[in-house]
Amino acid sequence: MNKAILLKSRPEGTPTESNFEIKETKTPEINDGEILLESLYVSVDPYLRGRMRDEKSYIEPFKIDHPVESSIIAQVTDSKNKDFEKGTFVHGMLPWKLKQKHTGKGLQKVDKYRAPLSAYLGILGLTGITAYVGLTKIGDLKEGETLLVSGASGAVGSTVGQIGKIMGCKVVGIAGSDEKVETMKSKFGFDKGINYKTTDDMNAAVKNACPDGVDVYFDNVGGEILDAALANINRYGRVINCGAISLYNKTEKPTGPRHETTLVKKSVKMQGFIVRDFQEDFEAATKQLGQWLQEDKLTYSETIVEGFDNIPKAFIGLFEGKNEGKMVVKI
Amino acid sequence: MNKAILLKSRPEGTPTESNFEIKETKTPEINDGEILLESLYVSVDPYLRGRMRDEKSYIEPFKIDHPVESSIIAQVTDSKNKDFEKGTFVHGMLPWKLKQKHTGKGLQKVDKYRAPLSAYLGILGLTGITAYVGLTKIGDLKEGETLLVSGASGAVGSTVGQIGKIMGCKVVGIAGSDEKVETMKSKFGFDKGINYKTTDDMNAAVKNACPDGVDVYFDNVGGEILDAALANINRYGRVINCGAISLYNKTEKPTGPRHETTLVKKSVKMQGFIVRDFQEDFEAATKQLGQWLQEDKLTYSETIVEGFDNIPKAFIGLFEGKNEGKMVVKI
Repeated sequence: MNKAILLKSRPEGTPTESNFEIKETKTPEINDGEILLESLYVSVDPYLRGRMRDEKSYIEPFKIDHPVESSIIAQVTDSKNKDFEKGTFVHGMLPWKLKQKHTGKGLQKVDKYRAPLSAYLGILGLTGITAYVGLTKIGDLKEGETLLVSGASGAVGSTVGQIGKIMGCKVVGIAGSDEKVETMKSKFGFDKGINYKTTDDMNAAVKNACPDGVDVYFDNVGGEILDAALANINRYGRVINCGAISLYNKTEKPTGPRHETTLVKKSVKMQGFIVRDFQEDFEAATKQLGQWLQEDKLTYSETIVEGFDNIPKAFIGLFEGKNEGKMVVKI
Repeated sequence: MNKAILLKSRPEGTPTESNFEIKETKTPEINDGEILLESLYVSVDPYLRGRMRDEKSYIEPFKIDHPVESSIIAQVTDSKNKDFEKGTFVHGMLPWKLKQKHTGKGLQKVDKYRAPLSAYLGILGLTGITAYVGLTKIGDLKEGETLLVSGASGAVGSTVGQIGKIMGCKVVGIAGSDEKVETMKSKFGFDKGINYKTTDDMNAAVKNACPDGVDVYFDNVGGEILDAALANINRYGRVINCGAISLYNKTEKPTGPRHETTLVKKSVKMQGFIVRDFQEDFEAATKQLGQWLQEDKLTYSETIVEGFDNIPKAFIGLFEGKNEGKMVVKI
């Protein structure tokens, strides 16, 4: 027996389980040169929401009645391809299927003994690389600066904050519960944290937590938290626009204060990116992250949801703040 | 007899003549090491509006009951400083006074025979340098790209468009009258122009004028024209935030559509700057601009208002679109 999870309809606002369909399918047979993969860990990420819209973007939208795809760790359970022995663990962008055949093209082999398999979906995968290239390539973060991070207890945010500390910065995080604020300080070494849900005046809260102003703001959320960061930005400040999760489920075009005068007056840069823009830096980034991990300078959280059928629920949970760190589904 | 123009009160909304006071003063006497300057040409620029506000910025606000200052071309009419002979023409950031004494520190000598004196306030001064460093240092403009410019018939905008053409780009300008649109095409060589005052749907107008999308947008105005540029921006697009004149006189905090999702989805950069951020590039920029000017690859417009007492009126005229090209007051 095999299963796939299809996009049944395009979400309006926050996705619901009715937007997905779990479908029983046949286990494929492999031909010469092919391998059979069994999914072990499936990554669910906020950016997938964007691909569920029927609009032009850096990557094609998901098709209705076709499987959603994301980063997956799988094991080779049968092989007619000499490059992939049976038992090998691989990592790739794959459709949400229990079992699937593959040519092997574009898959990376992963070493189970170097780090836990799920880490390749997080701190050693696109999550960690996103944090690293965002801070270094876009943010140009320098020792002694004040770094503000939103979504700070999430997978990317908690890595951003730790890299900020490794680089000798003052790091302030923003998250949505006192528990998350406590974790970012005790577990990830942030200097200060702000719970935006219990804060009436975000501008004042950021000002209070960043008395020297904000030099670099790593934005995962957009919206009013971005406004508060820009209200406190320093001259030559940089905003790394990594995500805007607070806006992704809006059905109307969101509005807010205009920031162009701030950009001009303070020579501020705002720059969006996706990790794929920096393919050429992946190897160096992974090497550096792996080294910090081995030296115990980096740690990570993950929220593991069990069961293939729960992938949609885990994905929806991202928008309800149900994850601490990387959200991963274990099959 | 001598005169100075003081900031009498901080403008609310659009500046009026009542915000300024023309005051008769004494002609100063010079001491050893000093020179006496007589103002010949005074530059009025939109950014001066910012310094009239009592708020922190890259440069101190103007003080009430003190002279406003801007770029001025003056002649040395008396000298007790061996570095400045009587008759020399100089350029510097100077207070609005008919005559003033000076130590000479920070003044640049200008050559009357290389270019008309007023050009040193425009195409060979901060105006031309702003266009050049904005496009090359922030915009990273490349041959074959589509360049959109607002305030396109203004001093900076018309230079931006011409540099775009020199660099082999498709150049589209936005301005506020059919006459200005005609001038940008016939005199400055823009490929297309949009009169935003007679256009109902700016998004559609930009789309129509830029069928391949916008690669680089040089923004002098902010507001809804910026929104239209971002609605048509290409992947890896760059927005050069040089000014936001449409917002400078607003008394309430302006609002508009949020752009962070566009920045993330299309890896777009928006970056504000002031020309002083690039001091080290001034010499190379002036040299390049001077060469293009001599080769007749660059031209410029100026609107010359006559009379010291008319400086405030000329400044206010900037916000009413009364200038074509650089606005200069001839004393």
